[in-house]
Amino acid sequence: MTNTIDQPTRADATSRVERAGGAARVAAQRLAVLTRADKDAALHALADALLAATDRIVAANEADLARGRESGMAEGLQDRLRLDPERVAAIVEALRQLAGLPDPVGDIVRGSTLANGLQLRQIRVPMGVVGMIYEARPNVTVDAAGLGLKSGNAMILRGGSAAADTNRVIVGVLREALAQQGIPADAVQLLDGGHEDVNALITARGLVDLVIPRGSDRLIQAVVQGATVPVIETGVGNCHVYVDAAADLDQAVAIAVNSKTHRPSVCNAAESLLVHRDIADAVLPALYDALTSAGVVLHTDQRAGEIAGRHGTPYTPATEDDFGTEYLDLQLSVAVVDDLDAAIAHIGRYGSGHTEVIVTADRAAARQFVARVDAAVVAVNASSRFTDGGEFGFGAEIGISTQKLHARGPMGLQELTSTKWVVEGDGQVR
Amino acid sequence: MTNTIDQPTRADATSRVERAGGAARVAAQRLAVLTRADKDAALHALADALLAATDRIVAANEADLARGRESGMAEGLQDRLRLDPERVAAIVEALRQLAGLPDPVGDIVRGSTLANGLQLRQIRVPMGVVGMIYEARPNVTVDAAGLGLKSGNAMILRGGSAAADTNRVIVGVLREALAQQGIPADAVQLLDGGHEDVNALITARGLVDLVIPRGSDRLIQAVVQGATVPVIETGVGNCHVYVDAAADLDQAVAIAVNSKTHRPSVCNAAESLLVHRDIADAVLPALYDALTSAGVVLHTDQRAGEIAGRHGTPYTPATEDDFGTEYLDLQLSVAVVDDLDAAIAHIGRYGSGHTEVIVTADRAAARQFVARVDAAVVAVNASSRFTDGGEFGFGAEIGISTQKLHARGPMGLQELTSTKWVVEGDGQVR
Repeated sequence: MTNTIDQPTRADATSRVERAGGAARVAAQRLAVLTRADKDAALHALADALLAATDRIVAANEADLARGRESGMAEGLQDRLRLDPERVAAIVEALRQLAGLPDPVGDIVRGSTLANGLQLRQIRVPMGVVGMIYEARPNVTVDAAGLGLKSGNAMILRGGSAAADTNRVIVGVLREALAQQGIPADAVQLLDGGHEDVNALITARGLVDLVIPRGSDRLIQAVVQGATVPVIETGVGNCHVYVDAAADLDQAVAIAVNSKTHRPSVCNAAESLLVHRDIADAVLPALYDALTSAGVVLHTDQRAGEIAGRHGTPYTPATEDDFGTEYLDLQLSVAVVDDLDAAIAHIGRYGSGHTEVIVTADRAAARQFVARVDAAVVAVNASSRFTDGGEFGFGAEIGISTQKLHARGPMGLQELTSTKWVVEGDGQVR
Repeated sequence: MTNTIDQPTRADATSRVERAGGAARVAAQRLAVLTRADKDAALHALADALLAATDRIVAANEADLARGRESGMAEGLQDRLRLDPERVAAIVEALRQLAGLPDPVGDIVRGSTLANGLQLRQIRVPMGVVGMIYEARPNVTVDAAGLGLKSGNAMILRGGSAAADTNRVIVGVLREALAQQGIPADAVQLLDGGHEDVNALITARGLVDLVIPRGSDRLIQAVVQGATVPVIETGVGNCHVYVDAAADLDQAVAIAVNSKTHRPSVCNAAESLLVHRDIADAVLPALYDALTSAGVVLHTDQRAGEIAGRHGTPYTPATEDDFGTEYLDLQLSVAVVDDLDAAIAHIGRYGSGHTEVIVTADRAAARQFVARVDAAVVAVNASSRFTDGGEFGFGAEIGISTQKLHARGPMGLQELTSTKWVVEGDGQVR
């Protein structure tokens, strides 16, 4: 697939994806029965091959970067795209760490013996063929290939066109290394045609078992709207930190500042601060000082704005849009709420179901918040930044699901598996 | 919703579904925090109310049946539609049994304490709002409402137009009984507009968390193709019984006959018989005798046909289509295969991923079959008819999933839940 000439017509894309999907299904049959030892050895072989190909990967990446600069790519995007020997080494190290993780395939989820003597067990099996649609960062190409291999899935990758040369070299290296390990090269394929390839991939029912889009909200929505194969939606995090009436002041400041400023460009960063009115006068000045010292621009509702005004903190009145916005930047909406119910209602209205934080010393308030807020992760007295596969101890992450079906929150190897029921008997009939 | 006049335009349907979805979301917030005791008491109240309304339900059902007869509805469909006092009592009893089942909501799936002291737990929570699209049988209306209530989900039901009067009376009774229990009536709603309602329901992103279609392949495919909300595909079962070279003859006959004839109209009935060539001459005559005695019509490949011919068994040569057909009737395709690999390849080509059976005394063959056949249920020496939520001990079933995402195989209460991560700390930041 990696050398197919791009002919952006629908029929070509469909036949390209059908070929890729058919080859992936065959590869998946083999992957499904590999032992953990086979897969771990292959992961180390992939790591060795990538390391040995560092110069070629960096050269291809320089070509992508040059094309990006010519077309006026923003500095931030150029940085996400850039691979130097140090970054290649980090990607390689991540593959080796993957080899050290437990293999979810074959795990018994539950089991029982029925009254008629039938023995029942539900075991984890690979999904089969997984499509992954993503944007700039070429490290996702290696991560996805590695997670796919470890979980026994054949991966059809569709990276961003900005990283086309880098991805083509990386996937070529991975495929060659797989073949040398006796594993079908088609376990990892790259689709590098136009947008028609994406459309063909997300409608390839019977060939593709799951598609995971990862990137901008626009990309994710386009995939969700157009797909007929099952999708796991990742993504948008309009995360709130709610400072309750019974909050510890120091904890509130530390958690709000960390949630907002530790890495503002990622989905688990906080975008909105809610403060109980009984504590607003006492806590907002300190929060404002800490946040503005860190460079955060505040978009305040009326009551939060009044306190900012009295304290001499610069602020902009928030619009309705502000509360629904994932800034991914050093900006924060701030509102004073009447009580816990109002905070939960506000989060229900504007939240994206990603991560919601309460800061409180009040046990009843914490229990109410945890029970009633509908999100992938609900945190009490902890930064929103902990919503992460690495932090949760998964060892690797393919994305953070904000949907409720199959996987919710950080997705690791286990979330890339399905299950199969095995029934064993001695001739039982009904 | 139950009294809305049907105006089959897209805009009307969209606003109808938006109203229903909004009301369902509000109801779902309340359902999510009900205790098991509350929900079980409500289930018994629903059962009492339905029993007391038996006459009205049966009268409405007679109106549906009369309309069906006038429009030439087949006898079999009329039987599926029919409710008499005995059937109402059975439906009511199923609700009471649901009250006796454990509540999945609040179960801790996994948990840990991280190095930084954060306590992590993944708990089961309701999905939220679940849409259910189904066909003739009005007992599904009550089952779905009961499963929804027990799992804390608000249900938007879209039954078949053939059962419109019956469903309208049933849902009216359920809503009134819910309200009397202090539970929002909008926890159970019925959409009874035209097909535009279905389209609006399956594209109501943000209002509906999950849609489950249950019925004909045509219905399920239409939902899967048109949906933008997550779907669990239920359904088609092109199930095989493979009689291995090392099969016990009596077991092979008992399992093949039971799998095919115990209830031919359901998805876990066998549709195809594969026999290893080494045992074909020895086993097929007995299989043919038993199957034809039970009224089964045989569609044979060349080798299976030759044996039938020599034995004097009537047969029809199978076409390529026969092997891909879910007959749901006393018909069976039969093929002789060269070996286990050929059986697995045949199932991979024609199977629908529902239930696949091997009959064998050979441990290695059983292990290969279990490992390599890609289906929701793989059975060794047992009838395909055991793929059933009741048989598996789930106590109730909302359908049998043939997809790999979220739920695979029989779906009970647990499969109607999502999860939420709860993170508890003492001010931890990154």
